[in-house]
Amino acid sequence: MLDPMQNLLEELHKKYASVTSGHPATYIPELAKANPNDFAIVVTTVEGVQYKVGDWNKSFSLQSTSKPFIYGMALEEHGRDFVHSKVGVEPTGEAFNSIMELEKKTNRPYNPMINSGAIAISSFIKGDTFPKRLESMTKVFENYQGHEVSVGKEVFESEKKTAHRNRSIAHLLRHFNVIDDRIDEALDLYFMQCSILATTSDLSMMAATLANRGAHPLTKKRALSQEYVGDVLSLMFSCGMYDSSGEWAYTVGVPAKSGVSGAIFGVVPGEFGIAVYSPPIDEKGHSIRGLRVFEELSKRCQLSIFRVTKT
Amino acid sequence: MLDPMQNLLEELHKKYASVTSGHPATYIPELAKANPNDFAIVVTTVEGVQYKVGDWNKSFSLQSTSKPFIYGMALEEHGRDFVHSKVGVEPTGEAFNSIMELEKKTNRPYNPMINSGAIAISSFIKGDTFPKRLESMTKVFENYQGHEVSVGKEVFESEKKTAHRNRSIAHLLRHFNVIDDRIDEALDLYFMQCSILATTSDLSMMAATLANRGAHPLTKKRALSQEYVGDVLSLMFSCGMYDSSGEWAYTVGVPAKSGVSGAIFGVVPGEFGIAVYSPPIDEKGHSIRGLRVFEELSKRCQLSIFRVTKT
Amino acid sequence: MLDPMQNLLEELHKKYASVTSGHPATYIPELAKANPNDFAIVVTTVEGVQYKVGDWNKSFSLQSTSKPFIYGMALEEHGRDFVHSKVGVEPTGEAFNSIMELEKKTNRPYNPMINSGAIAISSFIKGDTFPKRLESMTKVFENYQGHEVSVGKEVFESEKKTAHRNRSIAHLLRHFNVIDDRIDEALDLYFMQCSILATTSDLSMMAATLANRGAHPLTKKRALSQEYVGDVLSLMFSCGMYDSSGEWAYTVGVPAKSGVSGAIFGVVPGEFGIAVYSPPIDEKGHSIRGLRVFEELSKRCQLSIFRVTKT
Amino acid sequence: MLDPMQNLLEELHKKYASVTSGHPATYIPELAKANPNDFAIVVTTVEGVQYKVGDWNKSFSLQSTSKPFIYGMALEEHGRDFVHSKVGVEPTGEAFNSIMELEKKTNRPYNPMINSGAIAISSFIKGDTFPKRLESMTKVFENYQGHEVSVGKEVFESEKKTAHRNRSIAHLLRHFNVIDDRIDEALDLYFMQCSILATTSDLSMMAATLANRGAHPLTKKRALSQEYVGDVLSLMFSCGMYDSSGEWAYTVGVPAKSGVSGAIFGVVPGEFGIAVYSPPIDEKGHSIRGLRVFEELSKRCQLSIFRVTKT
Repeated sequence: MLDPMQNLLEELHKKYASVTSGHPATYIPELAKANPNDFAIVVTTVEGVQYKVGDWNKSFSLQSTSKPFIYGMALEEHGRDFVHSKVGVEPTGEAFNSIMELEKKTNRPYNPMINSGAIAISSFIKGDTFPKRLESMTKVFENYQGHEVSVGKEVFESEKKTAHRNRSIAHLLRHFNVIDDRIDEALDLYFMQCSILATTSDLSMMAATLANRGAHPLTKKRALSQEYVGDVLSLMFSCGMYDSSGEWAYTVGVPAKSGVSGAIFGVVPGEFGIAVYSPPIDEKGHSIRGLRVFEELSKRCQLSIFRVTKT
Repeated sequence: MLDPMQNLLEELHKKYASVTSGHPATYIPELAKANPNDFAIVVTTVEGVQYKVGDWNKSFSLQSTSKPFIYGMALEEHGRDFVHSKVGVEPTGEAFNSIMELEKKTNRPYNPMINSGAIAISSFIKGDTFPKRLESMTKVFENYQGHEVSVGKEVFESEKKTAHRNRSIAHLLRHFNVIDDRIDEALDLYFMQCSILATTSDLSMMAATLANRGAHPLTKKRALSQEYVGDVLSLMFSCGMYDSSGEWAYTVGVPAKSGVSGAIFGVVPGEFGIAVYSPPIDEKGHSIRGLRVFEELSKRCQLSIFRVTKT
Repeated sequence: MLDPMQNLLEELHKKYASVTSGHPATYIPELAKANPNDFAIVVTTVEGVQYKVGDWNKSFSLQSTSKPFIYGMALEEHGRDFVHSKVGVEPTGEAFNSIMELEKKTNRPYNPMINSGAIAISSFIKGDTFPKRLESMTKVFENYQGHEVSVGKEVFESEKKTAHRNRSIAHLLRHFNVIDDRIDEALDLYFMQCSILATTSDLSMMAATLANRGAHPLTKKRALSQEYVGDVLSLMFSCGMYDSSGEWAYTVGVPAKSGVSGAIFGVVPGEFGIAVYSPPIDEKGHSIRGLRVFEELSKRCQLSIFRVTKT
Repeated sequence: MLDPMQNLLEELHKKYASVTSGHPATYIPELAKANPNDFAIVVTTVEGVQYKVGDWNKSFSLQSTSKPFIYGMALEEHGRDFVHSKVGVEPTGEAFNSIMELEKKTNRPYNPMINSGAIAISSFIKGDTFPKRLESMTKVFENYQGHEVSVGKEVFESEKKTAHRNRSIAHLLRHFNVIDDRIDEALDLYFMQCSILATTSDLSMMAATLANRGAHPLTKKRALSQEYVGDVLSLMFSCGMYDSSGEWAYTVGVPAKSGVSGAIFGVVPGEFGIAVYSPPIDEKGHSIRGLRVFEELSKRCQLSIFRVTKT
């Protein structure tokens, strides 16, 4: 006999599989190769129980879904004061404002959930040499995934070659003294985190780790100090969905992060993590099926942090 | 023997009474007359128990703290679809962008928590005549306060006379067909809601009504249909503190709204409502002592909706 | 035997009559009634000789082509210092910035050639009563036209009724103390100047008056003190064509002003005035045929103030 | 017996030498070393006669005063259509808009007179190798100066090392396909043109070459094809003084360009070139004494292109 959650996920998967609008991201060649039919939903409880449906074992690159994890790492390495002296906590508002994604008054990135903020965050990773910095960064993702991580080399090379805008951002961050002279290292660390591979099952487990106050549900190993979990969830909530963060907070109401590879993950604190993967994205860079699944899931399971009918 | 909450409030009141920076708002003459030393903190549980300290019985005009209540009224009268076809749900981002507070693409007010949004919301109030519209609006505030409300006539006249910017906004809303031809009525209803008087005790009770899923803790009378309480809390959370909403979400983490009369109220869903009153405001229009009290209260009582240490 | 100028105008008229793209302005109902086939070109020398082709005797409302004349009037009544303490001299840059058309730092209208600037300028017109103010304004246009002016009553009523955006601007100007409390008078004077009627022949004569250093070519009567002619031409050059002023300066290179009724006039200082009338306008509000005629005329007659081949 | 022009320049030099506000630019170390007391004014007629006063033989780096010359070079090498498909002709409006100095709709630099435009223009210089490109660029400046040019090596190195913002701009231009992959070459060519040395006498002669329709007054050698002189003057007029271009057009009224080394040059077409050098600059990057000298010179000699009293 199936759990009601499993039933629900299968219903949603079937329902939204028929939505075929949108196309995989094309801005880097590797992403364009994704199969638009791939579609997976995975819910993972804080006890580590998984409800999976669809192509949950297919790998994709994390892209921007990596940002909350690396932000948590920066808080652990440097503390709130340093990190937020360099990177803000405000949503960006209008997208068109934000080619460079810097606050007008302070010249800081608006927040750690956008490219400029994540490039800054990447530059903070401690280590004398690039390999050491890369290793400590990789370690973080291993703790969240509960196993060794692999990097999509082609994605990495593809990112690196076409990243003129990110390079532009990095130099501007240097101009405003947000980052130091190791500009190329910061960018490589940033491209690397975007290129880390995960299955929908992995990403859901990573989400469940945040839901579980920073400890991996199965390995029990701590991926993030408990005191910083609230910070990460708070910024995911305010800023995780770019300039539709307000819309998301209003209609879905859970801390979440999306990436242009077609993944979205959400966290229901103390309860479970959710990940949806489906490559076709809308003009704001969000997985189209992902948005729909989260909206319906939130309504039917009363996931919003402002839910009032639940006692 | 005092309750620990009462002790805490007294400690905070004593501590922050010594903060004397800032001045009462001067942009309308009536507000400038406020006594900068007035300072009150009131916490009201969903059962209606109140913890009060300081000048909790002094009256002030609600100003922008009225916005969440009137937004709830619009949802009840017109439903989500209509309201949000006219007014958005996104934070405004940079303040300097927002003289007119309209989204660039849609020409809607960003959200109901800013002047443009609240003027639009006011124009939606149903009624054939102005007195009928005013009456139904007043009724809403009475339900939240649990008693008859009084309006500060001098404040109202003062608002009305100096409201060139709000008048400008109203005509632009008319230009973009957000509001109808009853421009002056919309403005008068808006000025009226800003001019409604409350004590800190009243405002705390109003907050507790939201915390209590829309029913007044003592009268048990419903001020807002339960199904819309989440909407109101969600927009207070995303947009209630203007362009420092992100900062507030990060450091305090509860749905809240501030007004230039020096009041701030916050809602801890299912638990209690909090109101702080102290007229001196900062450049963003927030009560200076109010911000400090909320920050410390949130830290010490773990109020953030993203709190993780609580089990 | 025809003058070469007459030949040239006939050639251009024939050539561009075949351009039928665009539509008359629709934003006020009266303008939408214009005949899209109307098309006239008139050149008037500083001696008062006119070269006319097409429907040069059809009347249209001046709309924004009235702005340079009223600006000149303000300079005469108040001097440069006062006028430019209230209204700037910078082009607006991007159009999307300028719903309200105010400079961010100074809260002044960018310049007198845009609506906000012209509304401010209108508020400066001296006089104890509205009829006196209207009379002195009308007098100015009579001096430029060389005869009594008539006002399009339907246009005026139409402007007045639909001018929500201009009303919004006026209240914001009041907010920033750019204008005084006679807001409605300022708007009525503004709508009135927009509604003054002229034929293409009239407008060309008005342009020739500026080319003739402020004295009407035929009546010899002074319409503008010589010392302010340069100011008017300078701002027409920098700001007369809205956010395509740079493009116009580069490709046409003469001081000019366009209006949404489909009129454009240009001034070749010391030589002649040019007016083109053709109602279909582009998205920036410029007469489509008007732009083409001016471009070709400028190239073939070397009209640009930066022309270098002429010795 | 002195020429009246010589007398006037001496009077102005004496008068404005006493203005000691402002400081030399500090944003690159080499510029900060300038002597704030250096002050020179040189007027050069199209016949090559020079009126000189002050430190006219001291060298400084051209900085942004090089932009008009390199823009003319691009027009000669590529024609108007190509150049302006990549770089616009509109002034930028508000300075705060322009960290990246790109038009919102087209993603082109606003115009060739700002950094982004000049970096784009630099990338267009033809040549298989960097030395060849550098040589042909240098040749252009030699034609304007009438002798071999020298480059300030320290300035060049200083520019290159601290140019994070310009590097950022270049990568963004690459992102928008305004420039090709030779990003570093474009930047080096740009830094090199900024670092070319000139005396006030040289710069005045360069200005006189533009006034003389592109031919050097003494060598008679053509530095710019006559057909493009109008283009260069037009964009200097609209955009040469950054976001105070409107103010300059209104108060001075001649095509001009300023640079942060403290130089400003202006062109009175068909008559003469003017250069002023004085290192202390205001917050907009213009030489403080330079602005004053040009304003008074323009008023007293009626230099504005819109002057009306001259017959």
